[in-house]
Amino acid sequence: MKSWTLSELADRTGAQLRGDGACRIDGLGTLKSAGPHQLSFLANPLYRSALAATGAGAVLLNAEDAEGFDGNALIVANPYAIYAGLTHLFDRTPRPEAVIHPQSVVHPEAVLAPGVSVAACAVIEAGATIGAGSVIEAGVFVGARVRIGAGCRLRANSTIHHDCVLGDRVLIHSGVVIGDDGFGFVPAGGRWNKIAQIGRVVIHDDVDIGSGTCIDRGALDDTVIHQGVIIDNLVHIAHNVEIGPHTAIAGCCGISGSTKIGAWCVFAGGVGLAGHIEICDKVRLTGMTMVTKSITKPGSYSSGTAFDSTENWRKSAVRLKKLDDMARRLRELEGLVQQLTSKTD
Amino acid sequence: MKSWTLSELADRTGAQLRGDGACRIDGLGTLKSAGPHQLSFLANPLYRSALAATGAGAVLLNAEDAEGFDGNALIVANPYAIYAGLTHLFDRTPRPEAVIHPQSVVHPEAVLAPGVSVAACAVIEAGATIGAGSVIEAGVFVGARVRIGAGCRLRANSTIHHDCVLGDRVLIHSGVVIGDDGFGFVPAGGRWNKIAQIGRVVIHDDVDIGSGTCIDRGALDDTVIHQGVIIDNLVHIAHNVEIGPHTAIAGCCGISGSTKIGAWCVFAGGVGLAGHIEICDKVRLTGMTMVTKSITKPGSYSSGTAFDSTENWRKSAVRLKKLDDMARRLRELEGLVQQLTSKTD
Amino acid sequence: MKSWTLSELADRTGAQLRGDGACRIDGLGTLKSAGPHQLSFLANPLYRSALAATGAGAVLLNAEDAEGFDGNALIVANPYAIYAGLTHLFDRTPRPEAVIHPQSVVHPEAVLAPGVSVAACAVIEAGATIGAGSVIEAGVFVGARVRIGAGCRLRANSTIHHDCVLGDRVLIHSGVVIGDDGFGFVPAGGRWNKIAQIGRVVIHDDVDIGSGTCIDRGALDDTVIHQGVIIDNLVHIAHNVEIGPHTAIAGCCGISGSTKIGAWCVFAGGVGLAGHIEICDKVRLTGMTMVTKSITKPGSYSSGTAFDSTENWRKSAVRLKKLDDMARRLRELEGLVQQLTSKTD
Repeated sequence: MKSWTLSELADRTGAQLRGDGACRIDGLGTLKSAGPHQLSFLANPLYRSALAATGAGAVLLNAEDAEGFDGNALIVANPYAIYAGLTHLFDRTPRPEAVIHPQSVVHPEAVLAPGVSVAACAVIEAGATIGAGSVIEAGVFVGARVRIGAGCRLRANSTIHHDCVLGDRVLIHSGVVIGDDGFGFVPAGGRWNKIAQIGRVVIHDDVDIGSGTCIDRGALDDTVIHQGVIIDNLVHIAHNVEIGPHTAIAGCCGISGSTKIGAWCVFAGGVGLAGHIEICDKVRLTGMTMVTKSITKPGSYSSGTAFDSTENWRKSAVRLKKLDDMARRLRELEGLVQQLTSKTD
Repeated sequence: MKSWTLSELADRTGAQLRGDGACRIDGLGTLKSAGPHQLSFLANPLYRSALAATGAGAVLLNAEDAEGFDGNALIVANPYAIYAGLTHLFDRTPRPEAVIHPQSVVHPEAVLAPGVSVAACAVIEAGATIGAGSVIEAGVFVGARVRIGAGCRLRANSTIHHDCVLGDRVLIHSGVVIGDDGFGFVPAGGRWNKIAQIGRVVIHDDVDIGSGTCIDRGALDDTVIHQGVIIDNLVHIAHNVEIGPHTAIAGCCGISGSTKIGAWCVFAGGVGLAGHIEICDKVRLTGMTMVTKSITKPGSYSSGTAFDSTENWRKSAVRLKKLDDMARRLRELEGLVQQLTSKTD
Repeated sequence: MKSWTLSELADRTGAQLRGDGACRIDGLGTLKSAGPHQLSFLANPLYRSALAATGAGAVLLNAEDAEGFDGNALIVANPYAIYAGLTHLFDRTPRPEAVIHPQSVVHPEAVLAPGVSVAACAVIEAGATIGAGSVIEAGVFVGARVRIGAGCRLRANSTIHHDCVLGDRVLIHSGVVIGDDGFGFVPAGGRWNKIAQIGRVVIHDDVDIGSGTCIDRGALDDTVIHQGVIIDNLVHIAHNVEIGPHTAIAGCCGISGSTKIGAWCVFAGGVGLAGHIEICDKVRLTGMTMVTKSITKPGSYSSGTAFDSTENWRKSAVRLKKLDDMARRLRELEGLVQQLTSKTD
């Protein structure tokens, strides 16, 4: 296991060191779980109470929080960002060598830049190009003429279909499917007739796509994921969706066809968007919100009902169906009371 | 790149040609994006305004819309259906040769009809039968005794478990899982005891199943997907569900166990259905609708609340929990006002 | 096809046999579908009416229901539990031999106990250990240093990433992804900066995880699935979630990061939980419930609205946005009516 002294970590992060610079750190941990050779951090005031009791070898924290703490400390302005950077030191995700595994299947007409790694049982089709240092893990399928940039990683058992394009440093997690057919059919002759999906998926640089997420290829034009977008697990992105730079989409969201989403939006889990709408920049959606129309003003939006005991919920749910009737009765009553009031005045 | 003259496309589609029949068409595009060698189409009156400015080499449209347009035109009664047909000319989805890849693993007791293609790293188990012209892409698993008809395509990294049945021309997209265990357990002895799922999944002809969708095998009887059903991505279909012919199910829907759905239903995305209910033919469900009881009358159904700013939504959500109380107070008030009215008359 | 006499099944289950003990049983079926060599069962009083007309060779039922039935019968106290046990006799899920397929790719530093089966195109990385009798199906990826117990089964095309831990008798269905990165990023410098996810996923004994489900590795500490948990298809479990023993989670649920769930909870399909909350033991959530706060009292909880015709639903949805206003008007009216009442008294 690799380790660093606290002094080395102070140098690396520009932190002010307080305490034993020779203390060896071989991992990171929460205030609650960290041991004597682990570094912890305090970023959220809610966890301040855990600081006193921590068994961590050292704690990364800001100057204010450091005052009441007498353990080893790395003092920085933004502990969370510094912690985020340090996680990569302790990441045990295997970094495969730049070899083409003999049990992979790379078409002779695929073009692999230097430093590409292709694992066992990966299949790369004719005309695909893969940029320098990209990693293709086991069981991955890369279709014909796919273009993958440099420094990408396609994790085990992910699938990229023909002609799709990935920029640089794109991270595709396991089970992801990029560029399968959009859901396009025209009803005629007593059946659904398939519309061939002849667009592509184009993913720009620095995009991260969570496991099990499916992004369909465009019907005619492309489905486009702009730079720096981050997408969580099991998200459905239909054909011709466009997602603006740096937008974050949490797990289980579904975006219907041709919907256009702006930059720096943040969607919580389970959100659903109708098709053919536009969401402007900096829109936040709380969990499980259903968006049926375009949103033109930045801000936070929600739908759904608060949870309740099933017994109470049943009553409310029944009442809700009568809400239009209640509103009408309320209006009538207001009229009657007004009449009564004038009579008795 | 293959191309056709406009005359050739007119002949092929039965369209009335107007303009330059020698114009070469090598692709399709939207009115907004199409270039001088691309054919576009106008099917939705909403896009009529884009017609004048289109850079398309030719446009597929109806006679009425053609009147005000002086570019090259293919005039047809139903532009959308004709466009749908033409997409297949320009589809670049690879059409693999009928070869068994040397790095696939086909059990000697599997039976492959003439013209079957099996890609690298596909695994086909004993007793499986695959019909003429079917395509098994890379990394696909076909379990023991699975029966696959003619003209099917199983896209990369999809999985079909033992004894399941696919008709002809079934299209299974990447990441799909057919015939894994239904969620059947009986609580006894302080634990969940698994009920072996001994039914199958039976999929009839001309079914299209989107990427990441999972269809569980039946507990005793089969899970059945009837002819012409189309299912989008990341849909969960539990054991013993039956889906009637030509029903369309959009992304992220979940259908609970033993629920029976009629023909020609259309479910928008994110819909959830309870178990052991029946949905009659021609039911439409809008996005994210939760269906807890059987539906016996064709028509459109919905649930959920409209989205609002999170601030307003919080107020409504709190009020909603008091709705039963509000209804009671309204009723009391009606009684009081009636008394007052009789007194003051 | 294997078969048993009714006498043999009576012996095996401790049932009281009534009728022809020599009757051969080669399968199970519902009362409606079972034939003369199939055993059916009656567990739910709702199906009592189907008993008279059944074509089953014999029926498993309790003493009370047996009274009015004159066919062959196996009489037991709990027909459903006995049926559940018998399903395993008729399960045709292949039981592979304990061989390492020559077209699998097992790293020489992986350690496989006796009786392990590894299918074609499975890839097992360095340092992985697999316990006695476990089955690794086709196309499975087992990452570096993964520890898998005895009697596990990893179904085709599932993925387990580095350092994760599975107990004994864990069943992982197809398309499942265990231990891919949690969704952890810190915004800084005009972009999302990835936080390496250095925790693991730890799955205890007797857990069953449905197809397409994704369980992310922890950010620092582990994501933990306790003993006997059962999870259905397409469930998203974020980093650092902890799920207590014997909790059951149906399809399409999403559990956000760091949320802790107690023992013996039952979540219906499509439920969503916010992050950083705690759900106590024995909580039931009905379908598509959204849980935004901790739950500290066992019981059943719900959210959402009842479905309605789209036409009525639209009216209610509009009204709902005015509910706060209605509540205010109702309160005013109550004040006015009280004044009027005192005046007219």
